[in-house]
Amino acid sequence: MDIQPLLDAATFNSDGLVAAIAQDDATGDVLMLAYMNRETLQMTLETGVMTYWSRSRQKVWKKGETSGNVQNVVQAFVDCDGDAILFRVNQVGDAACHTGHRSCFYRRVEDGALETIGTPVFDADSVYK
Amino acid sequence: MDIQPLLDAATFNSDGLVAAIAQDDATGDVLMLAYMNRETLQMTLETGVMTYWSRSRQKVWKKGETSGNVQNVVQAFVDCDGDAILFRVNQVGDAACHTGHRSCFYRRVEDGALETIGTPVFDADSVYK
Repeated sequence: MDIQPLLDAATFNSDGLVAAIAQDDATGDVLMLAYMNRETLQMTLETGVMTYWSRSRQKVWKKGETSGNVQNVVQAFVDCDGDAILFRVNQVGDAACHTGHRSCFYRRVEDGALETIGTPVFDADSVYK
Repeated sequence: MDIQPLLDAATFNSDGLVAAIAQDDATGDVLMLAYMNRETLQMTLETGVMTYWSRSRQKVWKKGETSGNVQNVVQAFVDCDGDAILFRVNQVGDAACHTGHRSCFYRRVEDGALETIGTPVFDADSVYK
């Protein structure tokens, strides 16, 4: 597919990054927010597999490389000012979060406390040795 | 409500910001991504109305202040590393985007081009004079 229009529409910040939201195409749940640079955005569009830029490790981060829980792109949307891209994805393995939770947003504000919702789909310690 | 647990869980970046995703509670559509500093996160939690920090204008940005299209918080979730917060909101006026589109993510990658989905709910020129 011609990926140039999206690359052209993307507005990278001073660190060379755009925000990338992964939304579960089946459930509509927002799974995670991470960042992509031009290279990993291009890789994501070319391969159809969500590939972020890890700010903490300063390297290409093919999501699910270790856990097997890759995210396959279904659709991509760019926002009005181009600094965020929304991807509807098929989440393989049912868990996007490195904690084993389905979504990284697994803590809800409830009565002034943070309540953990759901139980981990996998045991993080046995996946990331 | 006691907002301290969420403020404590939030991880502000070097610019003092966390990412804030607004998701339509009724439809599950991701409406927009913007940023909050500690002050506007606190205002959002205290007032129940989405209040961002405008990076371009460097000021408090109560979403919908001009257009009337405010976003009322239904639920808030914090992600695993605290640098993103997901808000499920009731979008007043049916349009989150300043372009009049329902969602800021109104351009979809389709056959290598960006296709505009949906028509604006309001006429931006008549709202923002």
